[in-house]
Amino acid sequence: MNKKPLILVTNDDGITAPGLRALIKVMNKIGDVVVVAPDSPQSGMGHAITVDDTLYCKKEHIDDGPQTEYSTSGTPADCVKLAVNEILKRKPDLCVSGINHGSNASINVIYSGTMSAAVEAGIEGIPSIGFSMCDYSWNASFESCEKYIEIISRELLAKSNKKNMILNVNFPKINKGEKYKGIKICRQAKSYWKETFDKRENPNGRKYYWLTGEFINLDKREDSDQWALSNGYISIVPVMYDMTSFSDIDEIDKWDLK
Amino acid sequence: MNKKPLILVTNDDGITAPGLRALIKVMNKIGDVVVVAPDSPQSGMGHAITVDDTLYCKKEHIDDGPQTEYSTSGTPADCVKLAVNEILKRKPDLCVSGINHGSNASINVIYSGTMSAAVEAGIEGIPSIGFSMCDYSWNASFESCEKYIEIISRELLAKSNKKNMILNVNFPKINKGEKYKGIKICRQAKSYWKETFDKRENPNGRKYYWLTGEFINLDKREDSDQWALSNGYISIVPVMYDMTSFSDIDEIDKWDLK
Repeated sequence: MNKKPLILVTNDDGITAPGLRALIKVMNKIGDVVVVAPDSPQSGMGHAITVDDTLYCKKEHIDDGPQTEYSTSGTPADCVKLAVNEILKRKPDLCVSGINHGSNASINVIYSGTMSAAVEAGIEGIPSIGFSMCDYSWNASFESCEKYIEIISRELLAKSNKKNMILNVNFPKINKGEKYKGIKICRQAKSYWKETFDKRENPNGRKYYWLTGEFINLDKREDSDQWALSNGYISIVPVMYDMTSFSDIDEIDKWDLK
Repeated sequence: MNKKPLILVTNDDGITAPGLRALIKVMNKIGDVVVVAPDSPQSGMGHAITVDDTLYCKKEHIDDGPQTEYSTSGTPADCVKLAVNEILKRKPDLCVSGINHGSNASINVIYSGTMSAAVEAGIEGIPSIGFSMCDYSWNASFESCEKYIEIISRELLAKSNKKNMILNVNFPKINKGEKYKGIKICRQAKSYWKETFDKRENPNGRKYYWLTGEFINLDKREDSDQWALSNGYISIVPVMYDMTSFSDIDEIDKWDLK
């Protein structure tokens, strides 16, 4: 590639999140960076889009880096649509989303705003990566991930002429001074969230709930992302958006639907 | 099955939507019905969940049917979580979502609140179906679908001891007096939305956008849901939530990620 790649950067934790700032820093080494990110946190937004409300978009100047930045009132998927169809002069060569403060491995891919941005970019024909760190702390250190983010992003850029891919990359939580054991290419672990609702009463006596949950991993196999993360490896799961369960088609063909 | 099946009914257009009322009427013929649905429209919510806000839930009495009903301030996926973990005494035998006012075929499955409820039920181990009609009109007639909704629901209930399935069922738009040509078991068509943003200025001079789009079908094959719908057939696509792109794993294994 002769000219510098154009890189779209977004996230779901909002434009001022430390994870996004760390990601911008790495991307500035690789290409020309345009940031289009939500103006407020959008965690758990799944693949939501804004169909019945107005969308605001504002140019931002948050640090002295060379990137161009916009904040929007929309969801992560809205940010990608707005960037590709309204803000950017040409289709980006790469879209990266994150670094999310918290895991998007296994079933979390379904609920994740970070990954919805990456999937949206994939649908629009742009190679994309969602980066997440299995550490929910707002002050988590992203230093240890930066080297790997650069390696993975450059490799996807180099190989993306073959096929558009969407990657779900998760970094395990490690202690200061520790190193990652390496990178594993994985499949999404079978898992779910076992919810409990924390029931409370507001000052007017009206009952309300907080959603809380416990993550249940049903999958012990070594090719799963949960195994990789539990054992100190960075996990990469290639993601697709064809949700057809092909194995069920033959079964249903036998049903009596007359 | 000796006792009547317990059926959870939800949607994304809100508890008073005509499509939901039609679905409740059919389900009352099949089993004991509990409705847990959003108190306001939630279209385009994808698989959003409410992680950083309170959730309200209120018992409702909307018509004189035998069903029990609750409205919630949450998303469709929240409704299923709240129903299964807080409201219902036992796990439902079936979850149905819809009837959506508008198509959820092909790529729309990703953006759909209707389908996110069905997928959430699937994750929780409950056989589920999202029903949608390719007619965005609020006053669309659902009469022609009712017979097929009953047939498909009873068949899934009868076969669900074998395997939990999630079905995405779409009804084509037909004119009054016309009949559906039949049912086709399909795969999700390859397609995307080509967005354009309608740019406006609010009374204070601030620019804002409305998201609008044109549906682009890239898939002419006869086994796709778009083909079935365009040709007058009801489409059924079995859906899964493992988003791993297995075909990409071998490819990425060859990358240089050192």
